[in-house]
Amino acid sequence: MITVSSLTDLRKARKKLCEPVGFVPTMGYLHEGHISLVRRAKSECRSVVVSIYVNPSQFGPHEDFEKYPRNLEGDIALLEKAGVDLLWTPTNACMYPPGYQTWIDVEKLSQPLEGALRPGHFRGVATIVAKLFNCVQPQKAYFGQKDAQQAAIICQMTEDLNFPIDIVVCPTVREKDGLAMSSRNCYLTQEQRSAAKVMVQALDLARQLFEQGERQTAPLVEIVQHTVEQQTGVILQYAACVDPKTFLPMDTITDQALLLIAIQTGDTRLIDNIELTVAPVAG
Amino acid sequence: MITVSSLTDLRKARKKLCEPVGFVPTMGYLHEGHISLVRRAKSECRSVVVSIYVNPSQFGPHEDFEKYPRNLEGDIALLEKAGVDLLWTPTNACMYPPGYQTWIDVEKLSQPLEGALRPGHFRGVATIVAKLFNCVQPQKAYFGQKDAQQAAIICQMTEDLNFPIDIVVCPTVREKDGLAMSSRNCYLTQEQRSAAKVMVQALDLARQLFEQGERQTAPLVEIVQHTVEQQTGVILQYAACVDPKTFLPMDTITDQALLLIAIQTGDTRLIDNIELTVAPVAG
Repeated sequence: MITVSSLTDLRKARKKLCEPVGFVPTMGYLHEGHISLVRRAKSECRSVVVSIYVNPSQFGPHEDFEKYPRNLEGDIALLEKAGVDLLWTPTNACMYPPGYQTWIDVEKLSQPLEGALRPGHFRGVATIVAKLFNCVQPQKAYFGQKDAQQAAIICQMTEDLNFPIDIVVCPTVREKDGLAMSSRNCYLTQEQRSAAKVMVQALDLARQLFEQGERQTAPLVEIVQHTVEQQTGVILQYAACVDPKTFLPMDTITDQALLLIAIQTGDTRLIDNIELTVAPVAG
Repeated sequence: MITVSSLTDLRKARKKLCEPVGFVPTMGYLHEGHISLVRRAKSECRSVVVSIYVNPSQFGPHEDFEKYPRNLEGDIALLEKAGVDLLWTPTNACMYPPGYQTWIDVEKLSQPLEGALRPGHFRGVATIVAKLFNCVQPQKAYFGQKDAQQAAIICQMTEDLNFPIDIVVCPTVREKDGLAMSSRNCYLTQEQRSAAKVMVQALDLARQLFEQGERQTAPLVEIVQHTVEQQTGVILQYAACVDPKTFLPMDTITDQALLLIAIQTGDTRLIDNIELTVAPVAG
Protein backbone atom coordinates (compact mmCIF):
# COMPACT_ATOMS: atom_id res chain seq x y z
CA MET A 1 0.00 0.00 0.00
CA ILE A 2 1.25 3.46 -0.95
CA THR A 3 0.53 6.18 1.62
CA VAL A 4 0.55 9.82 0.49
CA SER A 5 -0.37 13.10 2.13
CA SER A 6 0.12 15.94 -0.38
CA LEU A 7 -2.28 16.45 -3.27
CA THR A 8 0.61 16.39 -5.73
CA ASP A 9 1.68 12.94 -4.50
CA LEU A 10 -1.92 11.75 -4.56
CA ARG A 11 -2.43 12.83 -8.18
CA LYS A 12 0.87 11.21 -9.18
CA ALA A 13 0.00 7.92 -7.47
CA ARG A 14 -3.58 8.01 -8.78
CA LYS A 15 -2.38 8.19 -12.39
CA LYS A 16 -0.61 4.83 -11.99
CA LEU A 17 -3.68 2.97 -10.67
CA CYS A 18 -5.60 0.53 -12.86
CA GLU A 19 -9.21 1.50 -13.46
CA PRO A 20 -11.93 1.18 -12.37
CA VAL A 21 -10.80 2.85 -9.15
CA GLY A 22 -12.97 2.33 -6.05
CA PHE A 23 -12.85 4.96 -3.31
CA VAL A 24 -13.68 4.68 0.38
CA PRO A 25 -13.58 8.09 2.13
CA THR A 26 -13.27 7.77 5.93
CA MET A 27 -12.49 9.79 9.04
CA GLY A 28 -10.20 7.01 10.30
CA TYR A 29 -10.37 5.04 13.55
CA LEU A 30 -11.45 2.23 11.27
CA HIS A 31 -13.72 -0.63 12.24
CA GLU A 32 -15.25 -3.60 10.51
CA GLY A 33 -17.85 -1.33 8.91
CA HIS A 34 -15.15 0.56 7.01
CA ILE A 35 -13.36 -2.66 6.11
CA SER A 36 -16.59 -4.07 4.68
CA LEU A 37 -16.64 -1.07 2.30
CA VAL A 38 -13.04 -1.80 1.29
CA ARG A 39 -13.89 -5.46 0.65
CA ARG A 40 -16.86 -4.48 -1.49
CA ALA A 41 -14.67 -2.01 -3.42
CA LYS A 42 -12.01 -4.68 -3.94
CA SER A 43 -14.62 -7.08 -5.28
CA GLU A 44 -15.83 -4.51 -7.86
CA CYS A 45 -12.75 -2.48 -8.81
CA ARG A 46 -9.20 -3.07 -9.99
CA SER A 47 -7.76 -0.55 -7.49
CA VAL A 48 -8.95 0.76 -4.14
CA VAL A 49 -8.16 4.18 -2.66
CA VAL A 50 -8.98 5.06 0.97
CA SER A 51 -8.81 8.54 2.45
CA ILE A 52 -8.52 9.27 6.15
CA TYR A 53 -9.46 12.83 6.98
CA VAL A 54 -11.29 14.21 10.00
CA ASN A 55 -13.05 17.03 8.17
CA PRO A 56 -13.38 20.06 10.45
CA SER A 57 -16.12 21.72 8.38
CA GLN A 58 -18.67 19.02 9.19
CA PHE A 59 -18.33 19.48 12.96
CA GLY A 60 -20.33 22.15 14.79
CA PRO A 61 -18.55 24.51 17.20
CA HIS A 62 -19.68 22.44 20.22
CA GLU A 63 -19.16 19.04 18.63
CA ASP A 64 -16.36 16.50 19.05
CA PHE A 65 -13.87 17.53 16.34
CA GLU A 66 -10.99 17.88 18.81
CA LYS A 67 -11.62 14.63 20.62
CA TYR A 68 -12.70 12.58 17.59
CA PRO A 69 -10.70 9.33 17.95
CA ARG A 70 -7.56 8.92 15.84
CA ASN A 71 -5.27 5.91 15.37
CA LEU A 72 -3.38 6.19 12.09
CA GLU A 73 -0.98 3.35 12.84
CA GLY A 74 -3.79 0.91 13.60
CA ASP A 75 -5.72 2.12 10.53
CA ILE A 76 -2.73 1.58 8.24
CA ALA A 77 -2.34 -2.01 9.51
CA LEU A 78 -6.02 -2.75 8.84
CA LEU A 79 -5.92 -1.23 5.35
CA GLU A 80 -2.67 -3.03 4.44
CA LYS A 81 -4.24 -6.29 5.48
CA ALA A 82 -7.43 -5.52 3.52
CA GLY A 83 -5.35 -5.02 0.35
CA VAL A 84 -5.88 -1.28 -0.22
CA ASP A 85 -3.68 0.14 -3.00
CA LEU A 86 -3.45 3.78 -2.01
CA LEU A 87 -4.08 5.59 1.28
CA TRP A 88 -4.44 9.35 1.24
CA THR A 89 -4.22 11.38 4.45
CA PRO A 90 -4.77 15.01 3.44
CA THR A 91 -4.00 17.90 5.78
CA ASN A 92 -6.25 20.80 6.77
CA ALA A 93 -3.79 23.19 5.10
CA CYS A 94 -4.33 21.38 1.81
CA MET A 95 -8.11 20.98 2.09
CA TYR A 96 -8.94 24.44 3.48
CA PRO A 97 -6.14 26.86 2.56
CA PRO A 98 -6.40 30.55 3.52
CA GLY A 99 -9.12 32.25 1.47
CA TYR A 100 -11.13 29.03 1.10
CA GLN A 101 -14.78 30.01 0.45
CA THR A 102 -16.67 27.47 -1.69
CA TRP A 103 -19.51 25.43 -0.20
CA ILE A 104 -21.97 22.92 -1.57
CA ASP A 105 -25.53 22.68 -0.28
CA VAL A 106 -27.88 19.80 -1.00
CA GLU A 107 -30.78 21.86 0.11
CA LYS A 108 -33.87 19.80 0.82
CA LEU A 109 -32.23 16.59 2.00
CA SER A 110 -30.04 18.58 4.42
CA GLN A 111 -32.96 20.17 6.26
CA PRO A 112 -34.56 17.48 8.48
CA LEU A 113 -33.30 15.10 11.20
CA GLU A 114 -29.49 15.18 11.42
CA GLY A 115 -29.51 18.41 9.42
CA ALA A 116 -31.85 20.10 11.89
CA LEU A 117 -29.80 18.95 14.90
CA ARG A 118 -26.41 19.64 13.33
CA PRO A 119 -26.62 22.94 11.39
CA GLY A 120 -23.96 23.10 8.66
CA HIS A 121 -23.02 19.44 9.08
CA PHE A 122 -24.20 18.26 5.67
CA ARG A 123 -22.81 21.34 3.94
CA GLY A 124 -19.42 20.29 5.30
CA VAL A 125 -20.00 16.69 4.26
CA ALA A 126 -21.17 17.50 0.71
CA THR A 127 -18.29 19.93 0.20
CA ILE A 128 -15.51 17.63 1.41
CA VAL A 129 -16.88 14.66 -0.52
CA ALA A 130 -16.97 16.72 -3.75
CA LYS A 131 -13.39 17.82 -3.08
CA LEU A 132 -12.25 14.25 -2.39
CA PHE A 133 -14.02 13.07 -5.56
CA ASN A 134 -12.18 15.68 -7.63
CA CYS A 135 -8.85 14.70 -6.08
CA VAL A 136 -9.22 10.91 -6.28
CA GLN A 137 -11.38 10.75 -9.45
CA PRO A 138 -12.77 7.29 -8.73
CA GLN A 139 -15.24 5.38 -10.88
CA LYS A 140 -17.06 4.10 -7.79
CA ALA A 141 -17.32 5.37 -4.20
CA TYR A 142 -18.54 3.45 -1.16
CA PHE A 143 -20.56 4.69 1.81
CA GLY A 144 -22.29 2.98 4.74
CA GLN A 145 -26.06 2.76 5.17
CA LYS A 146 -25.56 3.48 8.91
CA ASP A 147 -25.30 7.18 7.99
CA ALA A 148 -28.42 6.95 5.84
CA GLN A 149 -29.09 10.67 5.41
CA GLN A 150 -25.46 11.31 4.53
CA ALA A 151 -25.58 8.53 1.94
CA ALA A 152 -28.77 9.98 0.42
CA ILE A 153 -27.22 13.45 0.27
CA ILE A 154 -24.09 12.14 -1.43
CA CYS A 155 -26.18 10.21 -3.98
CA GLN A 156 -28.21 13.36 -4.69
CA MET A 157 -25.15 15.60 -4.99
CA THR A 158 -23.39 13.12 -7.27
CA GLU A 159 -26.39 13.03 -9.57
CA ASP A 160 -27.13 16.77 -9.40
CA LEU A 161 -23.53 17.82 -10.08
CA ASN A 162 -23.04 15.10 -12.73
CA PHE A 163 -20.01 13.48 -11.11
CA PRO A 164 -19.14 10.48 -13.33
CA ILE A 165 -19.09 8.24 -10.25
CA ASP A 166 -21.29 5.33 -9.11
CA ILE A 167 -22.22 5.61 -5.45
CA VAL A 168 -22.49 2.25 -3.69
CA VAL A 169 -24.27 2.24 -0.32
CA CYS A 170 -23.36 -0.83 1.77
CA PRO A 171 -25.23 -2.49 4.65
CA THR A 172 -24.64 -1.43 8.23
CA VAL A 173 -22.18 -3.68 10.07
CA ARG A 174 -23.16 -4.45 13.65
CA GLU A 175 -21.54 -5.64 16.88
CA LYS A 176 -22.56 -9.09 18.18
CA ASP A 177 -25.38 -7.56 20.22
CA GLY A 178 -26.64 -5.58 17.26
CA LEU A 179 -25.27 -2.10 17.98
CA ALA A 180 -24.27 -0.43 14.71
CA MET A 181 -20.51 -0.06 14.45
CA SER A 182 -19.30 3.53 14.79
CA SER A 183 -15.97 5.13 15.60
CA ARG A 184 -17.88 7.08 18.25
CA ASN A 185 -18.80 3.88 20.16
CA CYS A 186 -15.36 4.20 21.82
CA TYR A 187 -16.70 7.22 23.74
CA LEU A 188 -19.19 5.05 25.64
CA THR A 189 -18.74 3.95 29.25
CA GLN A 190 -19.70 0.34 29.97
CA GLU A 191 -23.08 1.52 31.26
CA GLN A 192 -23.73 3.75 28.24
CA ARG A 193 -22.63 0.96 25.90
CA SER A 194 -25.18 -1.34 27.51
CA ALA A 195 -27.93 1.30 27.43
CA ALA A 196 -27.23 2.09 23.76
CA LYS A 197 -28.49 -1.37 22.79
CA VAL A 198 -31.98 0.03 23.23
CA MET A 199 -31.66 1.55 19.74
CA VAL A 200 -31.51 -1.90 18.15
CA GLN A 201 -34.21 -3.26 20.44
CA ALA A 202 -36.52 -0.39 19.54
CA LEU A 203 -35.90 -0.77 15.81
CA ASP A 204 -36.40 -4.55 16.07
CA LEU A 205 -39.76 -4.12 17.81
CA ALA A 206 -40.85 -1.74 15.07
CA ARG A 207 -39.70 -4.18 12.43
CA GLN A 208 -41.73 -6.97 14.06
CA LEU A 209 -44.80 -4.74 14.04
CA PHE A 210 -44.17 -3.93 10.37
CA GLU A 211 -43.75 -7.63 9.55
CA GLN A 212 -47.05 -8.33 11.28
CA GLY A 213 -48.63 -6.07 8.70
CA GLU A 214 -48.57 -2.58 10.21
CA ARG A 215 -48.31 -0.09 7.35
CA GLN A 216 -49.11 3.13 9.23
CA THR A 217 -45.91 4.82 10.37
CA ALA A 218 -47.32 6.40 13.56
CA PRO A 219 -47.43 3.10 15.54
CA LEU A 220 -43.95 2.18 14.29
CA VAL A 221 -42.50 5.50 15.42
CA GLU A 222 -44.41 5.28 18.71
CA ILE A 223 -43.01 1.88 19.61
CA VAL A 224 -39.50 3.21 19.02
CA GLN A 225 -40.19 6.26 21.18
CA HIS A 226 -41.83 4.20 23.90
CA THR A 227 -39.01 1.65 24.00
CA VAL A 228 -36.27 4.27 24.26
CA GLU A 229 -38.18 6.17 26.97
CA GLN A 230 -38.09 3.01 29.14
CA GLN A 231 -34.28 2.98 29.09
CA THR A 232 -32.48 5.06 31.71
CA GLY A 233 -29.38 6.98 30.66
CA VAL A 234 -30.58 7.49 27.09
CA ILE A 235 -32.39 10.49 25.58
CA LEU A 236 -34.25 10.08 22.29
CA GLN A 237 -33.34 12.87 19.86
CA TYR A 238 -35.66 11.72 17.11
CA ALA A 239 -37.45 8.71 15.71
CA ALA A 240 -38.86 9.10 12.21
CA CYS A 241 -40.19 7.05 9.35
CA VAL A 242 -39.29 8.70 6.04
CA ASP A 243 -39.24 8.26 2.30
CA PRO A 244 -35.74 6.93 1.50
CA LYS A 245 -35.41 9.31 -1.48
CA THR A 246 -36.64 12.57 0.03
CA PHE A 247 -36.29 11.98 3.79
CA LEU A 248 -39.73 13.50 4.18
CA PRO A 249 -42.05 11.85 6.75
CA MET A 250 -44.51 9.26 5.43
CA ASP A 251 -47.91 8.34 6.87
CA THR A 252 -48.35 4.99 5.16
CA ILE A 253 -45.72 2.60 3.81
CA THR A 254 -46.74 1.37 0.38
CA ASP A 255 -43.34 0.36 -0.92
CA GLN A 256 -40.26 1.26 1.10
CA ALA A 257 -39.43 3.40 4.12
CA LEU A 258 -36.51 4.20 6.37
CA LEU A 259 -37.01 4.10 10.12
CA LEU A 260 -34.39 6.35 11.68
CA ILE A 261 -33.36 6.88 15.27
CA ALA A 262 -30.94 9.20 17.06
CA ILE A 263 -30.18 9.04 20.77
CA GLN A 264 -27.88 10.78 23.17
CA THR A 265 -26.18 9.03 26.07
CA GLY A 266 -23.84 11.17 28.13
CA ASP A 267 -22.09 13.46 25.65
CA THR A 268 -22.34 10.96 22.83
CA ARG A 269 -24.84 11.03 19.95
CA LEU A 270 -25.55 7.73 18.20
CA ILE A 271 -27.70 7.05 15.15
CA ASP A 272 -29.11 3.95 13.50
CA ASN A 273 -31.76 3.00 10.95
CA ILE A 274 -33.50 0.08 9.27
CA GLU A 275 -35.15 -0.26 5.90
CA LEU A 276 -38.76 -1.42 5.83
CA THR A 277 -39.72 -2.94 2.49
CA VAL A 278 -43.15 -4.20 1.52
CA ALA A 279 -42.57 -7.64 0.01
CA PRO A 280 -43.95 -7.91 -3.52
CA VAL A 281 -47.04 -10.09 -3.70
CA ALA A 282 -46.06 -13.41 -5.28
CA GLY A 283 -47.54 -13.61 -8.75
CA MET B 1 -17.88 18.85 -35.72
CA ILE B 2 -20.04 16.43 -33.75
CA THR B 3 -23.13 17.97 -32.16
CA VAL B 4 -24.80 16.18 -29.22
CA SER B 5 -27.56 17.06 -26.82
CA SER B 6 -28.01 14.19 -24.34
CA LEU B 7 -25.51 13.57 -21.55
CA THR B 8 -25.12 9.96 -22.67
CA ASP B 9 -24.12 11.07 -26.16
CA LEU B 10 -21.79 13.69 -24.73
CA ARG B 11 -19.98 11.15 -22.52
CA LYS B 12 -19.70 8.74 -25.45
CA ALA B 13 -18.27 11.42 -27.77
CA ARG B 14 -16.01 12.81 -25.05
CA LYS B 15 -14.32 9.42 -24.57
CA LYS B 16 -13.15 9.44 -28.19
CA LEU B 17 -11.48 12.88 -28.00
CA CYS B 18 -7.71 13.25 -27.83
CA GLU B 19 -6.43 14.91 -24.67
CA PRO B 20 -5.78 17.54 -23.51
CA VAL B 21 -9.37 18.64 -24.04
CA GLY B 22 -10.09 22.38 -23.99
CA PHE B 23 -13.59 23.54 -23.05
CA VAL B 24 -15.40 26.76 -23.86
CA PRO B 25 -18.75 27.02 -22.04
CA THR B 26 -21.08 29.59 -23.62
CA MET B 27 -24.70 30.75 -23.64
CA GLY B 28 -24.65 30.89 -27.44
CA TYR B 29 -25.38 33.86 -29.75
CA LEU B 30 -21.67 33.70 -30.35
CA HIS B 31 -19.48 36.64 -31.27
CA GLU B 32 -15.81 37.21 -31.87
CA GLY B 33 -15.17 37.16 -28.11
CA HIS B 34 -16.32 33.54 -27.88
CA ILE B 35 -14.41 32.61 -31.02
CA SER B 36 -11.23 34.09 -29.56
CA LEU B 37 -11.65 31.62 -26.67
CA VAL B 38 -12.05 28.75 -29.15
CA ARG B 39 -8.92 29.85 -31.02
CA ARG B 40 -6.94 29.99 -27.77
CA ALA B 41 -8.24 26.54 -26.81
CA LYS B 42 -7.28 25.14 -30.22
CA SER B 43 -3.78 26.56 -29.86
CA GLU B 44 -3.30 24.83 -26.49
CA CYS B 45 -5.32 21.59 -26.69
CA ARG B 46 -5.68 18.59 -29.00
CA SER B 47 -9.51 18.76 -28.89
CA VAL B 48 -11.98 21.55 -28.24
CA VAL B 49 -15.47 21.15 -26.77
CA VAL B 50 -17.99 24.03 -26.74
CA SER B 51 -21.27 24.01 -24.82
CA ILE B 52 -24.21 26.25 -25.63
CA TYR B 53 -26.65 26.49 -22.75
CA VAL B 54 -28.69 29.46 -21.55
CA ASN B 55 -28.61 28.54 -17.86
CA PRO B 56 -31.90 29.55 -16.20
CA SER B 57 -30.49 29.41 -12.65
CA GLN B 58 -28.18 32.38 -13.21
CA PHE B 59 -31.02 34.72 -14.26
CA GLY B 60 -33.05 36.60 -11.67
CA PRO B 61 -36.86 36.51 -11.84
CA HIS B 62 -36.96 39.93 -13.53
CA GLU B 63 -33.97 39.39 -15.79
CA ASP B 64 -33.77 38.55 -19.48
CA PHE B 65 -33.78 34.72 -19.49
CA GLU B 66 -36.77 34.51 -21.82
CA LYS B 67 -35.56 37.08 -24.29
CA TYR B 68 -31.85 36.18 -24.16
CA PRO B 69 -30.81 36.01 -27.83
CA ARG B 70 -30.52 32.58 -29.45
CA ASN B 71 -29.24 31.59 -32.89
CA LEU B 72 -28.14 27.95 -32.88
CA GLU B 73 -27.78 27.70 -36.66
CA GLY B 74 -25.50 30.72 -36.84
CA ASP B 75 -23.53 29.47 -33.82
CA ILE B 76 -22.99 26.05 -35.41
CA ALA B 77 -21.63 27.67 -38.58
CA LEU B 78 -19.17 29.80 -36.58
CA LEU B 79 -17.99 26.84 -34.49
CA GLU B 80 -17.60 24.56 -37.52
CA LYS B 81 -15.47 27.23 -39.17
CA ALA B 82 -13.40 27.68 -36.01
CA GLY B 83 -12.59 23.96 -36.01
CA VAL B 84 -14.44 22.87 -32.85
CA ASP B 85 -14.52 19.08 -32.36
CA LEU B 86 -17.60 18.65 -30.22
CA LEU B 87 -20.60 20.91 -29.55
CA TRP B 88 -22.88 20.09 -26.63
CA THR B 89 -26.32 21.68 -26.33
CA PRO B 90 -27.79 20.34 -23.08
CA THR B 91 -31.47 20.73 -22.24
CA ASN B 92 -33.04 22.11 -19.07
CA ALA B 93 -34.56 18.67 -18.40
CA CYS B 94 -31.07 17.19 -18.34
CA MET B 95 -29.40 19.94 -16.32
CA TYR B 96 -32.18 20.52 -13.76
CA PRO B 97 -34.35 17.41 -13.54
CA PRO B 98 -37.25 17.27 -11.05
CA GLY B 99 -35.89 17.15 -7.49
CA TYR B 100 -32.72 19.04 -8.38
CA GLN B 101 -31.41 20.69 -5.18
CA THR B 102 -27.61 21.07 -5.14
CA TRP B 103 -26.04 24.53 -5.24
CA ILE B 104 -22.49 25.84 -5.05
CA ASP B 105 -21.66 29.14 -3.36
CA VAL B 106 -18.34 30.94 -3.71
CA GLU B 107 -19.18 33.05 -0.74
CA LYS B 108 -16.97 36.12 -0.47
CA LEU B 109 -16.35 36.76 -4.16
CA SER B 110 -20.09 36.51 -4.87
CA GLN B 111 -21.04 39.31 -2.47
CA PRO B 112 -20.05 42.64 -4.05
CA LEU B 113 -20.78 44.41 -7.36
CA GLU B 114 -22.56 42.06 -9.79
CA GLY B 115 -23.37 39.76 -6.85
CA ALA B 116 -25.04 42.59 -4.93
CA LEU B 117 -27.08 43.70 -7.96
CA ARG B 118 -27.96 40.19 -9.14
CA PRO B 119 -28.79 38.04 -6.08
CA GLY B 120 -28.27 34.36 -6.79
CA HIS B 121 -26.56 35.03 -10.13
CA PHE B 122 -23.13 33.70 -9.17
CA ARG B 123 -24.61 30.73 -7.33
CA GLY B 124 -26.22 29.77 -10.63
CA VAL B 125 -22.98 30.38 -12.51
CA ALA B 126 -20.77 28.41 -10.10
CA THR B 127 -23.23 25.51 -10.04
CA ILE B 128 -23.67 25.19 -13.81
CA VAL B 129 -19.94 25.52 -14.46
CA ALA B 130 -19.20 22.72 -11.94
CA LYS B 131 -21.84 20.57 -13.63
CA LEU B 132 -20.44 21.29 -17.10
CA PHE B 133 -16.92 20.52 -15.85
CA ASN B 134 -18.07 17.13 -14.51
CA CYS B 135 -19.82 16.34 -17.79
CA VAL B 136 -17.09 17.47 -20.18
CA GLN B 137 -14.06 16.66 -17.97
CA PRO B 138 -11.70 19.01 -19.78
CA GLN B 139 -8.06 19.62 -18.91
CA LYS B 140 -8.42 23.35 -19.62
CA ALA B 141 -11.41 25.71 -19.65
CA TYR B 142 -11.59 29.18 -21.19
CA PHE B 143 -13.42 32.28 -19.95
CA GLY B 144 -13.44 35.94 -20.97
CA GLN B 145 -11.99 38.75 -18.88
CA LYS B 146 -15.04 40.88 -19.82
CA ASP B 147 -16.96 39.07 -17.08
CA ALA B 148 -14.14 39.64 -14.60
CA GLN B 149 -15.99 38.77 -11.41
CA GLN B 150 -17.38 35.59 -12.97
CA ALA B 151 -13.88 34.58 -14.07
CA ALA B 152 -12.50 35.20 -10.56
CA ILE B 153 -15.32 33.13 -9.03
CA ILE B 154 -14.70 30.25 -11.41
CA CYS B 155 -10.95 30.32 -10.68
CA GLN B 156 -11.68 30.29 -6.94
CA MET B 157 -14.23 27.47 -7.19
CA THR B 158 -11.93 25.37 -9.35
CA GLU B 159 -9.13 25.73 -6.81
CA ASP B 160 -11.36 25.30 -3.74
CA LEU B 161 -13.13 22.19 -5.05
CA ASN B 162 -9.90 20.72 -6.48
CA PHE B 163 -11.14 20.35 -10.05
CA PRO B 164 -8.16 19.03 -12.05
CA ILE B 165 -8.67 21.78 -14.63
CA ASP B 166 -6.59 24.81 -15.66
CA ILE B 167 -8.70 27.95 -16.00
CA VAL B 168 -7.53 30.29 -18.77
CA VAL B 169 -8.90 33.84 -18.69
CA CYS B 170 -8.65 35.56 -22.09
CA PRO B 171 -8.60 39.27 -22.98
CA THR B 172 -11.83 41.13 -23.70
CA VAL B 173 -12.55 41.43 -27.42
CA ARG B 174 -13.92 44.84 -28.47
CA GLU B 175 -15.88 46.37 -31.31
CA LYS B 176 -14.05 48.91 -33.53
CA ASP B 177 -15.16 51.78 -31.30
CA GLY B 178 -14.00 49.97 -28.16
CA LEU B 179 -17.32 48.64 -26.79
CA ALA B 180 -16.74 45.22 -25.21
CA MET B 181 -18.39 42.47 -27.24
CA SER B 182 -21.45 40.96 -25.55
CA SER B 183 -24.39 38.93 -26.76
CA ARG B 184 -26.53 41.53 -25.01
CA ASN B 185 -25.29 44.34 -27.30
CA CYS B 186 -27.99 43.19 -29.73
CA TYR B 187 -30.61 44.61 -27.34
CA LEU B 188 -29.35 48.16 -27.89
CA THR B 189 -31.12 50.73 -30.07
CA GLN B 190 -28.83 52.84 -32.24
CA GLU B 191 -29.00 55.64 -29.67
CA GLN B 192 -28.26 53.32 -26.75
CA ARG B 193 -25.43 51.69 -28.70
CA SER B 194 -23.90 55.12 -29.23
CA ALA B 195 -24.40 56.16 -25.59
CA ALA B 196 -22.89 52.87 -24.34
CA LYS B 197 -19.49 53.94 -25.71
CA VAL B 198 -19.21 56.17 -22.65
CA MET B 199 -18.09 53.06 -20.68
CA VAL B 200 -14.93 52.78 -22.75
CA GLN B 201 -14.37 56.51 -22.74
CA ALA B 202 -14.69 56.62 -18.95
CA LEU B 203 -12.33 53.67 -18.46
CA ASP B 204 -9.84 55.22 -20.92
CA LEU B 205 -9.81 58.52 -19.04
CA ALA B 206 -9.15 56.65 -15.80
CA ARG B 207 -6.36 54.68 -17.45
CA GLN B 208 -4.75 57.91 -18.67
CA LEU B 209 -4.87 59.31 -15.14
CA PHE B 210 -3.34 56.09 -13.83
CA GLU B 211 -0.60 56.22 -16.48
CA GLN B 212 0.14 59.80 -15.43
CA GLY B 213 1.00 58.39 -12.00
CA GLU B 214 -2.27 58.48 -10.04
CA ARG B 215 -2.17 55.58 -7.55
CA GLN B 216 -5.10 56.59 -5.32
CA THR B 217 -8.26 54.84 -6.49
CA ALA B 218 -10.72 57.60 -5.46
CA PRO B 219 -9.82 59.96 -8.35
CA LEU B 220 -9.88 57.05 -10.81
CA VAL B 221 -13.36 56.01 -9.71
CA GLU B 222 -14.51 59.65 -9.67
CA ILE B 223 -13.47 60.28 -13.26
CA VAL B 224 -15.43 57.22 -14.36
CA GLN B 225 -18.49 58.37 -12.40
CA HIS B 226 -18.21 61.91 -13.66
CA THR B 227 -17.79 60.85 -17.29
CA VAL B 228 -20.81 58.54 -17.22
CA GLU B 229 -22.96 61.18 -15.51
CA GLN B 230 -22.34 63.51 -18.47
CA GLN B 231 -23.90 61.00 -20.88
CA THR B 232 -27.66 61.12 -21.37
CA GLY B 233 -29.52 57.83 -21.62
CA VAL B 234 -27.09 55.95 -19.39
CA ILE B 235 -27.29 55.25 -15.66
CA LEU B 236 -24.17 54.25 -13.75
CA GLN B 237 -24.81 51.19 -11.60
CA TYR B 238 -21.35 51.05 -10.11
CA ALA B 239 -17.75 52.05 -10.69
CA ALA B 240 -15.18 50.39 -8.44
CA CYS B 241 -11.46 49.78 -8.20
CA VAL B 242 -10.83 46.41 -6.56
CA ASP B 243 -8.17 43.84 -5.75
CA PRO B 244 -8.29 41.34 -8.67
CA LYS B 245 -8.05 38.37 -6.27
CA THR B 246 -10.62 39.36 -3.62
CA PHE B 247 -12.78 41.95 -5.42
CA LEU B 248 -12.55 44.07 -2.27
CA PRO B 249 -12.14 47.84 -2.79
CA MET B 250 -8.60 49.22 -2.71
CA ASP B 251 -7.48 52.71 -1.66
CA THR B 252 -4.05 52.70 -3.24
CA ILE B 253 -2.74 50.68 -6.17
CA THR B 254 0.67 49.25 -5.37
CA ASP B 255 0.70 46.38 -7.82
CA GLN B 256 -2.46 45.55 -9.73
CA ALA B 257 -6.11 46.58 -9.66
CA LEU B 258 -9.29 46.04 -11.62
CA LEU B 259 -11.38 49.05 -12.53
CA LEU B 260 -14.95 47.84 -13.06
CA ILE B 261 -18.02 49.54 -14.44
CA ALA B 262 -21.66 48.61 -14.87
CA ILE B 263 -24.24 50.77 -16.60
CA GLN B 264 -27.85 50.53 -17.55
CA THR B 265 -29.28 51.93 -20.77
CA GLY B 266 -32.97 51.29 -21.36
CA ASP B 267 -33.60 47.77 -20.06
CA THR B 268 -30.07 46.61 -20.81
CA ARG B 269 -27.24 46.21 -18.30
CA LEU B 270 -23.71 46.32 -19.66
CA ILE B 271 -20.42 45.73 -17.85
CA ASP B 272 -16.77 46.33 -18.67
CA ASN B 273 -13.43 46.52 -16.88
CA ILE B 274 -9.74 47.25 -17.35
CA GLU B 275 -6.67 46.04 -15.52
CA LEU B 276 -4.37 48.66 -14.07
CA THR B 277 -0.85 47.33 -13.50
CA VAL B 278 2.02 49.25 -11.95
CA ALA B 279 4.96 48.71 -14.30
CA PRO B 280 7.97 47.20 -12.54
CA VAL B 281 10.80 49.71 -12.12
CA ALA B 282 13.50 48.81 -14.65
CA GLY B 283 16.48 47.38 -12.76
